[in-house]
Amino acid sequence: MGDWSAQELEALPTRFRGNLINGIAGFKPALLVGTADAQGQTNLALFSSVFHIGASPPLLGLIVRPCPEGTERHTLDNILATGVFTLNHITEPMVPAAHQTSARYARSQSEFSATELTEEWIADFPAPAVQQSTVKLGLSLIEHQVLAVNQTHLLIAGVQWLRCPDSGIREDGSVNLVELNSQAVCGLDSYHGATEGRRFIYAKADRPPQAIR
Amino acid sequence: MGDWSAQELEALPTRFRGNLINGIAGFKPALLVGTADAQGQTNLALFSSVFHIGASPPLLGLIVRPCPEGTERHTLDNILATGVFTLNHITEPMVPAAHQTSARYARSQSEFSATELTEEWIADFPAPAVQQSTVKLGLSLIEHQVLAVNQTHLLIAGVQWLRCPDSGIREDGSVNLVELNSQAVCGLDSYHGATEGRRFIYAKADRPPQAIR
Repeated sequence: MGDWSAQELEALPTRFRGNLINGIAGFKPALLVGTADAQGQTNLALFSSVFHIGASPPLLGLIVRPCPEGTERHTLDNILATGVFTLNHITEPMVPAAHQTSARYARSQSEFSATELTEEWIADFPAPAVQQSTVKLGLSLIEHQVLAVNQTHLLIAGVQWLRCPDSGIREDGSVNLVELNSQAVCGLDSYHGATEGRRFIYAKADRPPQAIR
Repeated sequence: MGDWSAQELEALPTRFRGNLINGIAGFKPALLVGTADAQGQTNLALFSSVFHIGASPPLLGLIVRPCPEGTERHTLDNILATGVFTLNHITEPMVPAAHQTSARYARSQSEFSATELTEEWIADFPAPAVQQSTVKLGLSLIEHQVLAVNQTHLLIAGVQWLRCPDSGIREDGSVNLVELNSQAVCGLDSYHGATEGRRFIYAKADRPPQAIR
């Protein structure tokens, strides 16, 4: 049994601790964040730190790592400059190209052109979506915080538009991520599909859990 | 193709929009949050809004929905009162009981006693873990914010201890969530295991993506 205290975690080799802590809180969504700078130079980056904040209005959060001196954060710079970004689901065939976007490309090189992923411009929204993705969302920045605890950036954004194939949405509005072939991430480098799964009706204290058939 | 603008999303029936937005950003981790109040009354609740903030020091974030007048948030109250909580992985056999913890039990009734899940007290940490879980973490609250945008609570917490079976941790520290049988959540009610998955080496701009064999 692996058993670590806070002190023991702090004493682990950096890489080991990074792998451990990035994976230990469970599965994460695999998403591509599409942005452009004020001149229209595009950027595409893999993120697994998107989370739900609210449904009415529809709000999502995104964590962006701090920028140690000398490093560039193209995605963050672009979002702060333009106020918008897209989120795009990664399907199983897209995984190698999606992973490749995490490489450190020069600011002048778009990850779209470096991979086989294709820009898709939706209406006049000023950030590119990914043509190959099933689900695409356009978001606008509402709040930007630098968290005091470790200088990580927290972005809160509102959904401006949302596209999803009909086959991925059930009658009750719930999303069928298995049908959409959307991937989950574990840690920094492991991509997974999901098994069929089980749904349950709304839980109430006076009745046992009941699966939806 | 489902295609919604912000205005069209706002006009959707509440339940449909809730299902859609809760599922549209991809897979989420399935975790049980264990807490106790100052008198030792325990509580256990399902959360899918935990996210990675940093590895050094190890920090996780948790979103807790706002408390409309007349509703109680036992988990939030307990964390704010004691400053600690546990996170516990949900494995496939635990899913029905874990889902049942989302029912609205009275403050005086512990979800542990209402389900077949068992309290486990680790050292003198003042929040209960779940005996049946494979991975267990103890966390202490570092920061509490009420987000201005929708009165949702953001909790930032540090990992105080971490337990994980050896079989779930590779030599490089990465976590094997498939081996651990950890579940992912889609939306509000759908629980999934993961397929074997593919790992890739660290991406660099001057070489193509390369799977780890």
